[in-house]
Amino acid sequence: MRFMAATAPPPTSPLSTLKMRLGDMNALHAAIGIMDWDMQTYMPPGGSEARAQHVSRLMRMHHDLFTSDEVQRLVEESSRGATGDDAAMLRVVKRELDQATKIPAALVEEKAKLTSTAFDIWVKARAANDFKSFAPYLERVVEIVREEAEYLGYKDHIYDALIDLYEEGATTADCRQMFDGIRQPLTDLVRAIAAKPQVDDSVLHGAWSEPAQKAFTEMIVKAVGFDFQRGRQDKAAHPFCTGWSIGDIRLTTRYKDNLLSAIFSSLHEAGHGMYEQFSPKEWDLTPLCGGVSLGLHESQSRTWENLVGRSRAFWVRFLPDLKQAFPQLAALDVDSFYRMANKVQPSLIRVEADEVTYNLHVLIRFELECDMLTGALTVRDLPEAWSSKYQTYLGVRPATDSEGCLQDVHWSGGSIGYFPTYSMGTVLSFQIWASMARDLGDLDAVIQRGDLASIHGWLVEKIYSQGRRYTPKELVQRVTGKPFETHDYLKGLTAKYAALYGL
Amino acid sequence: MRFMAATAPPPTSPLSTLKMRLGDMNALHAAIGIMDWDMQTYMPPGGSEARAQHVSRLMRMHHDLFTSDEVQRLVEESSRGATGDDAAMLRVVKRELDQATKIPAALVEEKAKLTSTAFDIWVKARAANDFKSFAPYLERVVEIVREEAEYLGYKDHIYDALIDLYEEGATTADCRQMFDGIRQPLTDLVRAIAAKPQVDDSVLHGAWSEPAQKAFTEMIVKAVGFDFQRGRQDKAAHPFCTGWSIGDIRLTTRYKDNLLSAIFSSLHEAGHGMYEQFSPKEWDLTPLCGGVSLGLHESQSRTWENLVGRSRAFWVRFLPDLKQAFPQLAALDVDSFYRMANKVQPSLIRVEADEVTYNLHVLIRFELECDMLTGALTVRDLPEAWSSKYQTYLGVRPATDSEGCLQDVHWSGGSIGYFPTYSMGTVLSFQIWASMARDLGDLDAVIQRGDLASIHGWLVEKIYSQGRRYTPKELVQRVTGKPFETHDYLKGLTAKYAALYGL
Repeated sequence: MRFMAATAPPPTSPLSTLKMRLGDMNALHAAIGIMDWDMQTYMPPGGSEARAQHVSRLMRMHHDLFTSDEVQRLVEESSRGATGDDAAMLRVVKRELDQATKIPAALVEEKAKLTSTAFDIWVKARAANDFKSFAPYLERVVEIVREEAEYLGYKDHIYDALIDLYEEGATTADCRQMFDGIRQPLTDLVRAIAAKPQVDDSVLHGAWSEPAQKAFTEMIVKAVGFDFQRGRQDKAAHPFCTGWSIGDIRLTTRYKDNLLSAIFSSLHEAGHGMYEQFSPKEWDLTPLCGGVSLGLHESQSRTWENLVGRSRAFWVRFLPDLKQAFPQLAALDVDSFYRMANKVQPSLIRVEADEVTYNLHVLIRFELECDMLTGALTVRDLPEAWSSKYQTYLGVRPATDSEGCLQDVHWSGGSIGYFPTYSMGTVLSFQIWASMARDLGDLDAVIQRGDLASIHGWLVEKIYSQGRRYTPKELVQRVTGKPFETHDYLKGLTAKYAALYGL
Repeated sequence: MRFMAATAPPPTSPLSTLKMRLGDMNALHAAIGIMDWDMQTYMPPGGSEARAQHVSRLMRMHHDLFTSDEVQRLVEESSRGATGDDAAMLRVVKRELDQATKIPAALVEEKAKLTSTAFDIWVKARAANDFKSFAPYLERVVEIVREEAEYLGYKDHIYDALIDLYEEGATTADCRQMFDGIRQPLTDLVRAIAAKPQVDDSVLHGAWSEPAQKAFTEMIVKAVGFDFQRGRQDKAAHPFCTGWSIGDIRLTTRYKDNLLSAIFSSLHEAGHGMYEQFSPKEWDLTPLCGGVSLGLHESQSRTWENLVGRSRAFWVRFLPDLKQAFPQLAALDVDSFYRMANKVQPSLIRVEADEVTYNLHVLIRFELECDMLTGALTVRDLPEAWSSKYQTYLGVRPATDSEGCLQDVHWSGGSIGYFPTYSMGTVLSFQIWASMARDLGDLDAVIQRGDLASIHGWLVEKIYSQGRRYTPKELVQRVTGKPFETHDYLKGLTAKYAALYGL
């Protein structure tokens, strides 16, 4: 392959010119994406200063191009009478253009500066368990996010404007309904499990070989359908998935003393990765390519991590391989391993939480975010409110703010409204799973006979191949035949853990 | 580090606005650079189609920005009364703008399309030893390059316009003078060596461990002064050096059955890399940063590869480490190893050539390029002309065109005028070395006592820290006190090989 200067086709219509501009923006986004991937995988320490400058310039170039008078006019003109894929693409573009233009540049700039500083302060505050030093920055972040919400507009609740940024069409009422539905059942389930003897998973902790972990995780990631001809997996401090074409989707994982960590984080990221890899080829590099929302995306990572990866059937299939890779585990039987992979233990840290307690961590953040935005909770009172909610919902209480309200990066970066998508995704994964079971039959049997391709194929057909053609709500309705709800989630979760813990 | 949208400073002058635009172009170049690096190191096969499109779009964006009316006007206005660094920067920018604007867009596009196809055809033609299928494309390449040269303009010889693209200010007459000076002495030296018993280096061929080669090459690359805090070394099919900031310079190497291959290619690329790494911090990300020309750059790769790396003194120092890394070599003594590292053997393939024969390979290409451009040689007659020159200068004759005139990638890409910079760099490395010896004394003694930092420091002061402030010719004059010439090269090379081969 050689590089050559691309030349614009003669613009025959506003739409073809718009597609040309969108192609340029896509190239800028790809550049930002690869620079970010590289920063987190291979970049030498000395590269960070230039990297920050390069990325910020490319972001500004993208923003200037997107919000230019020409592009706004082209979007307007192209929208008249557009049909089919073009109409769907224009809907996506108009929504993003709306978000990019509604907030004044001065506020965008102020937020960028503030969060850049707030992030540095947060890193230090968390290390020093010093919430007081972070509090004034968080106060200002909340104020700016409030202003943003006002510029974006909303109908019922100021939080609506924010959650919509991450989950198109979702409202505060939707979140409330979800959390109201799961709060009590989850709390009850956690209490019931706590009364039972705890699983001993000490055999899974140790100094595991990194190359062996790499080989094993890549084997199972490949087995579930991630295509290594069109992707790769590298090591990074934090697992993530990124990409810039359906032909080049990248996962990262990390290796810890808990053998399960790399396994399940790899399956989780592979779920995100497959959603991207199996977008339609004809939409590659266009706004219609990729996952439709954070919630839908999370439903796929959770499906492969939990519903497939944490099933007993999966380990009937793969425990022999695991034992071969790690002969120390030779004595382990499938039922013991299954229990260890699904150990439930209320803890203080969200990112280490198990399948049952996870959504309670998220619920706490949602409630606190809403209260901070409406003014019902001041930043000064946040640590106590945080601790008290952990006590109520999880029965544990942080000894320090570092393992309390300082643990997450999101707020220092101004991301308020993001957290609920984690829970939506988890809940949705069960709803989709139930729908799949109606088509494919007993999914445990499907997994146990090694027919992961059927599950993969069903998800490709119903979800991955739809790209961003539909809104998230439309897609959920099409895939599951009903709107988003918590029934399948509560039923599935309760059944699984009742069996596991003998409730 | 967080990313934030960069905002333009209020433009107080044409120069400050120009610098803002140049910063954006620098970011686009950085993106292209990292995409190219990634393509050659980690990109999965499926990524190539999108990568080609992304890179070509970013190249066009760069070109459009650079040749925009605004930037041309800003360069013009900024040039009035500019002094010091600004004047030097504007000289560099004007030269590049000149090159970017003189050739009509239609010709650039035609060349891009042609060379894209020609490259594919060349790959197949080389594999199939089928020059005839490549010949029509090479004919068209030569025609287009002729047109380019006419647009660029020249004084004495059409080839002047082309070599100046790669080596500012160099002329055909300069090349002729250099090659006329070295043709006979090199041919004589090769003949004299051929009459002597050949060195047996079979002990260096084998199945060497890649991790051991990686560790050893990184150790010596670090020892010569390459900063791994601001760079890294990866594996690629072809060794190269690239970068996008003095804080992030990347080398690649490859591992072959000849143990010396990775060692000397690593030192070679590290020479390029250090020239970039030690540009002044205040010029980072500006047009004044980096090496001044291909010839100067090659002088630095050759210095570290040959004058340092292939010296006996260097191996007095590092052979013990090599033996530790590869215990199979335990019996090897320094003099034997020194002879193996400097084995001279006329061969057909330039990239595998030794220090003595290398410039004869280049000379042949220079003579053929000139003749093709003037029409003295037709493409049809190229294979025979090539073979006959190899017979004359090197005493070997290719049995096939694949190991003859089809071996290099350059012509299929339209790079005519590039080859002489390889020889200029080699010749210049000796001239600079002699100048360094006047300051630092016996350089073998300096190397043998492990004081590589003195050599590195001298080069940083005299060359690397000068960035692109001076023209290549000015820099050579400043560093060596005289214009470019072949005296030190011939003297140094002859003395070294007379001693090695007992001439």
